[in-house]
Amino acid sequence: MKQFILLISSPDKKGLVYKITEILYRRELNIIKNDEFVDGENSKFFMRTVFEGEISKDELLNELEINIPAQSTISLIGEHKKSVVLLATKESHALGDILIRYDSGELNMNILGVISNYDTLRPLVEKFDIPYFHISHEGLEREAHEKEILGILQDLKAEVLVLAKYMRILSSDFVHRYQNRIINIHHSFLPAFIGANPYKQAFKRGVKIIGATAHFVNNNLDEGPIIAQDVKHIDHSYSWKDMQKVGKDVEKIVLSAALNLVLEDRVFVHGNKTVIF
Amino acid sequence: MKQFILLISSPDKKGLVYKITEILYRRELNIIKNDEFVDGENSKFFMRTVFEGEISKDELLNELEINIPAQSTISLIGEHKKSVVLLATKESHALGDILIRYDSGELNMNILGVISNYDTLRPLVEKFDIPYFHISHEGLEREAHEKEILGILQDLKAEVLVLAKYMRILSSDFVHRYQNRIINIHHSFLPAFIGANPYKQAFKRGVKIIGATAHFVNNNLDEGPIIAQDVKHIDHSYSWKDMQKVGKDVEKIVLSAALNLVLEDRVFVHGNKTVIF
Amino acid sequence: MKQFILLISSPDKKGLVYKITEILYRRELNIIKNDEFVDGENSKFFMRTVFEGEISKDELLNELEINIPAQSTISLIGEHKKSVVLLATKESHALGDILIRYDSGELNMNILGVISNYDTLRPLVEKFDIPYFHISHEGLEREAHEKEILGILQDLKAEVLVLAKYMRILSSDFVHRYQNRIINIHHSFLPAFIGANPYKQAFKRGVKIIGATAHFVNNNLDEGPIIAQDVKHIDHSYSWKDMQKVGKDVEKIVLSAALNLVLEDRVFVHGNKTVIF
Amino acid sequence: MKQFILLISSPDKKGLVYKITEILYRRELNIIKNDEFVDGENSKFFMRTVFEGEISKDELLNELEINIPAQSTISLIGEHKKSVVLLATKESHALGDILIRYDSGELNMNILGVISNYDTLRPLVEKFDIPYFHISHEGLEREAHEKEILGILQDLKAEVLVLAKYMRILSSDFVHRYQNRIINIHHSFLPAFIGANPYKQAFKRGVKIIGATAHFVNNNLDEGPIIAQDVKHIDHSYSWKDMQKVGKDVEKIVLSAALNLVLEDRVFVHGNKTVIF
Repeated sequence: MKQFILLISSPDKKGLVYKITEILYRRELNIIKNDEFVDGENSKFFMRTVFEGEISKDELLNELEINIPAQSTISLIGEHKKSVVLLATKESHALGDILIRYDSGELNMNILGVISNYDTLRPLVEKFDIPYFHISHEGLEREAHEKEILGILQDLKAEVLVLAKYMRILSSDFVHRYQNRIINIHHSFLPAFIGANPYKQAFKRGVKIIGATAHFVNNNLDEGPIIAQDVKHIDHSYSWKDMQKVGKDVEKIVLSAALNLVLEDRVFVHGNKTVIF
Repeated sequence: MKQFILLISSPDKKGLVYKITEILYRRELNIIKNDEFVDGENSKFFMRTVFEGEISKDELLNELEINIPAQSTISLIGEHKKSVVLLATKESHALGDILIRYDSGELNMNILGVISNYDTLRPLVEKFDIPYFHISHEGLEREAHEKEILGILQDLKAEVLVLAKYMRILSSDFVHRYQNRIINIHHSFLPAFIGANPYKQAFKRGVKIIGATAHFVNNNLDEGPIIAQDVKHIDHSYSWKDMQKVGKDVEKIVLSAALNLVLEDRVFVHGNKTVIF
Repeated sequence: MKQFILLISSPDKKGLVYKITEILYRRELNIIKNDEFVDGENSKFFMRTVFEGEISKDELLNELEINIPAQSTISLIGEHKKSVVLLATKESHALGDILIRYDSGELNMNILGVISNYDTLRPLVEKFDIPYFHISHEGLEREAHEKEILGILQDLKAEVLVLAKYMRILSSDFVHRYQNRIINIHHSFLPAFIGANPYKQAFKRGVKIIGATAHFVNNNLDEGPIIAQDVKHIDHSYSWKDMQKVGKDVEKIVLSAALNLVLEDRVFVHGNKTVIF
Repeated sequence: MKQFILLISSPDKKGLVYKITEILYRRELNIIKNDEFVDGENSKFFMRTVFEGEISKDELLNELEINIPAQSTISLIGEHKKSVVLLATKESHALGDILIRYDSGELNMNILGVISNYDTLRPLVEKFDIPYFHISHEGLEREAHEKEILGILQDLKAEVLVLAKYMRILSSDFVHRYQNRIINIHHSFLPAFIGANPYKQAFKRGVKIIGATAHFVNNNLDEGPIIAQDVKHIDHSYSWKDMQKVGKDVEKIVLSAALNLVLEDRVFVHGNKTVIF
């Protein structure tokens, strides 16, 4: 039997769960997993339902639209591998972790290519028979550089972008085109150590824990909706390079976990936050 | 408006969420929080719903019973502080943590008393104006000792028992009378180091992490349904006494967390496991 | 046999460990535990040695002073319970955790008293037969209020101050008098969420982890040397009050751990950081 | 300047640190890092010293041997990449993580080859230009199968073996030849869930945390000295396959961490435990 994921975000209203599950029940669809969350403060309702059965997507969407508040957002997703492009600079740990998981079949996606402003990572990427696009930023304005990248993304028909330690700031315009579809890994426990060289900042501050944060990219650097975070205990004996070394493990695990959540359609963006089922 | 918690565990069936939420919707009850889980392997459905509104408890229960499978278990809980008795031996950390939280109003319960087989903890308990019952086990068979304790529990009308480092094994008969209502803290990451002296066992084995486990007590020592667990990293420099010292922090936090989950009616017992919302 | 702790911080120089251990060896002192750390960047050496034996403190200190660099700091500590004063406002969890540990004999100190700008916590503190000083800040300038507190601290001969959720900022002058002897608990994972209402800030930012930081107080609010930090995973379903509730557990464990490290003379302050053995 | 690591384990005796550091001081060697540990119970001393300078290895070892107790073990290691052979079966996550780290230059070793009882992982391994040896166990007694593997190991001159999810039990004889040089990853938080299918066991027991353990292999399955452990929180909604999926992340991080500790000569084996600096 076919499996579908239904995602609804909506103004909160009495009876929403009842109305939605009634529609599924009348169509004899079998709910496998159901999660809801109500943000009481903002009176907002979120629901993710995994169900099995035979449907006409258009009919089901129509019926849902009629029965729930007008300002709702509804998505109905069948079995689908998302098309992903990875962007990187020179560091390999986050990129490599995704490639090796992808190679093992662990991540439900198609990697269309890797784009980098250096040629450093080509040998790694080509091991996995994935196209590598070296788009140097040298001598180019940001706009011109991004234009080249956007050209490739459009040719490849990318749905999701992963910044696997891509060390350049994206313009508002770029971000806007892939709203809530660009995942970045920041090498600190945000909002601590925003900006450049977080491990050096952490070393200077003398923290006893370091962390990493995967988030969607929005216009404000390092301020997009957080998807996943994790940390590691350290002590005074760690140089900033030691911090960076153990930090890389946290970064790669957190980025791959966030990517997996997005690929499984578990993440709602809600203002500057995420709701994750 | 009054707030209620509805707990349903039931054989799984298509349409259960729909039927239950319909009943609540028709009565104009306002769902604040709703959680469901289906154990597919055992075809078992669990639901916990927090709602507000005016109800006749009997009528609502009746209507629910008619509309969901016969073998279901339904509880409808209004605002209610559970009556709790604590059992301890000589160690104060787990007991003290509960007392201090209770004193601050953090735990939604009434402590009816503390029972111990030693008199050691009396000064601590009496600081909080809580009755202390010293029931020595010296010279008594298990049965006779338990009989005295059971007498007190019945007089006090205890609903939930917390073994805050009560270092004696309870008989089947005792456990049976408080089925799924006795919470124990075991000072290891179960099922590692079942039985006596887990820190000494952990030291001998040279583990790099120690833990604690809060669980309901059943007939098999240390094998009841697990409610909460946590751990702490250690290294070779820890003696077993050092392990015990840091372990106490894990124990008290885990036991208080498990107690809180039970007081908030978040825990279903499902065979030898728990489902926790 | 008597036990001593020797603390040395010094400009780094070849042969320091050799020279210091030679002095101890010639006096037939038995080293039980020895830790060293060299901050290579700042060429600074730290050593903490626990040893047993019979000594003349003055002679040993003299010999050490002659044999290691002039700018060194040497402390030799015999068995000594530090005299501690706790400051609090209205919240009881951090204070309560210290009191209950103190009562159980777990913390090697004497609590001389608790000072608060409210009378709220008096019943809790007096349960433990500890003097409670209510010094209201109402109608007083900071200076006048602190003067009253300083008077009490001087009368009590306080060595270490613990701000167990004392919600007022201390003046430079106050801090200066107890340089590196005031331990504060900040209810966030510093340097994230400096300042007021960190849980509200964390909620607004949508973080997936919350934390707490124990640090020495210096002139810059929330910027003193960090002693201990820990964190807890949360998710979108946590209101800021839920965050605060689970955060309290992290706060109390972290503050008590930091206090214990200070009481055991394990913490060196090194610029704006700590070295902890 | 050349860098060396000096490892000493010895019966404990007064003055050992002094005597060893004196020898290094007289030779004008510069200590960069120094760690000691005394196991008081067994009266055993461990020391790891990193130093720089010009030495005659034989002369230094001679002088050390004369000055410390006869039953000591002394190693003096110059710059050296260990020669490593990986053994695997069919699962790629642990192996892949080591390969990708190796490829990035993160691990200080030479991988001589990968041996597997299946041919499944050949494409992955050959991406990295590492020899792959498929030694099927089909139709072979354990002894005959191991003989083939031992032949390869001897040809390759392997110093350290890593069982990256090698799902076969090694004979005593095999283990004996690589005493304390075989690192295994066990997919549970040992000593919980010894033996086969730990995730199924963990699922059945209803634990709230899963873990992984890297350890040296000795004659008793899953009972060798533990090098590293880590855990991950889970809940009732995890099937055993979900546990396995998140468990793989813990496994790979723990195994790579343990391997790194061994490659940096930080691990002493001490009876059935490890001392790690």
